[in-house]
Amino acid sequence: MARVYVHDVAVRDGFQIEPAFVPTGVKIALIDELSATGLAKIEATAFVSPKVVPNLRDAEAVMRGIRRMPGVIYSALVPNAKGAERALACKVDEINLVVSASETHNRANVNRTTEQSLSGFRDVMRIVRGTGVAVNGSVSTTFGCPFEGNIPEARVFQCVERYLELGVDGITLADTTGMAHPKQVRELARAVSTRFPTAEITLHFHNTRGMGLANVLAGLEAGVVRFDGSLGGLGGCPFAPGATGNICTEDLVHMLESMGYQTGVDLDKLLVAARRLPKIVGHDLPGQVAKAGKITDLHPIPHQ
Amino acid sequence: MARVYVHDVAVRDGFQIEPAFVPTGVKIALIDELSATGLAKIEATAFVSPKVVPNLRDAEAVMRGIRRMPGVIYSALVPNAKGAERALACKVDEINLVVSASETHNRANVNRTTEQSLSGFRDVMRIVRGTGVAVNGSVSTTFGCPFEGNIPEARVFQCVERYLELGVDGITLADTTGMAHPKQVRELARAVSTRFPTAEITLHFHNTRGMGLANVLAGLEAGVVRFDGSLGGLGGCPFAPGATGNICTEDLVHMLESMGYQTGVDLDKLLVAARRLPKIVGHDLPGQVAKAGKITDLHPIPHQ
Repeated sequence: MARVYVHDVAVRDGFQIEPAFVPTGVKIALIDELSATGLAKIEATAFVSPKVVPNLRDAEAVMRGIRRMPGVIYSALVPNAKGAERALACKVDEINLVVSASETHNRANVNRTTEQSLSGFRDVMRIVRGTGVAVNGSVSTTFGCPFEGNIPEARVFQCVERYLELGVDGITLADTTGMAHPKQVRELARAVSTRFPTAEITLHFHNTRGMGLANVLAGLEAGVVRFDGSLGGLGGCPFAPGATGNICTEDLVHMLESMGYQTGVDLDKLLVAARRLPKIVGHDLPGQVAKAGKITDLHPIPHQ
Repeated sequence: MARVYVHDVAVRDGFQIEPAFVPTGVKIALIDELSATGLAKIEATAFVSPKVVPNLRDAEAVMRGIRRMPGVIYSALVPNAKGAERALACKVDEINLVVSASETHNRANVNRTTEQSLSGFRDVMRIVRGTGVAVNGSVSTTFGCPFEGNIPEARVFQCVERYLELGVDGITLADTTGMAHPKQVRELARAVSTRFPTAEITLHFHNTRGMGLANVLAGLEAGVVRFDGSLGGLGGCPFAPGATGNICTEDLVHMLESMGYQTGVDLDKLLVAARRLPKIVGHDLPGQVAKAGKITDLHPIPHQ
């Protein structure tokens, strides 16, 4: 069976919206624990304004404090040239850029037009060039915008094209608020792969409407082999209190390994980390396998 | 796009394991509410021993109290001849029989060998014959047994064959404790359909390891068009406190309708019922769409 690459974004995408700041030492310990599980990529932090995202104000300390495991890509989200300089100073392996396919969402998210965001990325690419650091271009709201609704396919193509012209190494199609459904994922992922056959595509899903792993299945059927998840399913949806956020990394790995895909991830180690996470954040998490156990975990026969 | 038939089992499969007895009038009102949504089938109760399942001790009162909506099949679980007589006296539309593919699980569940269960069903068929009441044969632990682990495909075939010899009208392949994964579902559902081309197959999934809707997708790909769900995702797993149970009916309908399938279900009405359910049972439920809204529910643009 095919190799599938699993990325974890809990420390960035999850911790950034937690009500409480997670201490730097706890973040570092968790990333080190995740590094030892065999994950292909860890999004460790974001080099953004500490005023905008106070929970990630320790980006430098986190990146400098973690132990780098060979084979793991340590990625950081970067919004602009200043963030890129900070990230390079900390020797990240990869810079992750984000623009929304939706004009309205991009304005709401970063207070810029998508054109302003994409133009700004030229400065980032200039700074990164020659450093050996990779760049990934994420297209958020690819599968729908909470304000605009449907996003035309042509708009997604346009964003991908602009990223590839900039010279990025990978593209992430992100379902930012969990609006994707499997038919759409299968069709759009196939369409992007057909139009840009050399682009290395990652799919980033949220489980907001319960379709997260169904969308992964659809993505696999479209030939995609890279997926983002979040440990424990940490994260949430700003528009729906109580709704879940990102798909759960250990549930993702469990499904993939059950189906015979090779993820390179030690699921038992990942589950140890996942079961520790509710104590770190102080609340229950939506991940299922951490509660129910693996399908191979059998139970004693009850007495008759 | 194809028609897909959605069944709800919350009032039986869900309420039976709730810590508190749900009053008969509340059950009847909920079934009546579900009847008006356009669901194809409602499993309304079980004619079992009130000592074994005290929560369903009001089976007669429930079946006699509900309003029958034309087009909806009102089904009841029946373990033996006595249960069948009780069910027929209440004019159910369908009797649902259950045997485990796993010998160990059947013993643990009903304290009989599978052979004893299947032989007993002959008496049920004799009682039902000529009444016009349909019979559905469920094979629980089809996709794995919590005690035995993997169930050989041949064993599932054997159970289906025995049911068909008995003269049942439909077969349900049930993933009783959420052990199915999409590859297995696709292969096994195809294999059963190929071997028994005239069998009308329903898939019954639990979301215990987060793969519920991914398994539905795999079932659709295998050509299955009938699925059980439970309103709100009500239910649970006896082996995993905190784990979810059945797949959530409204999340299932939401996914199917988003993908263009016709379910005949009024999702908005179903969501009204789902949002009322936590008050009935006194706890939060795992359903996502009731919390997050439909993917077509847009949000106001935030002020800049």
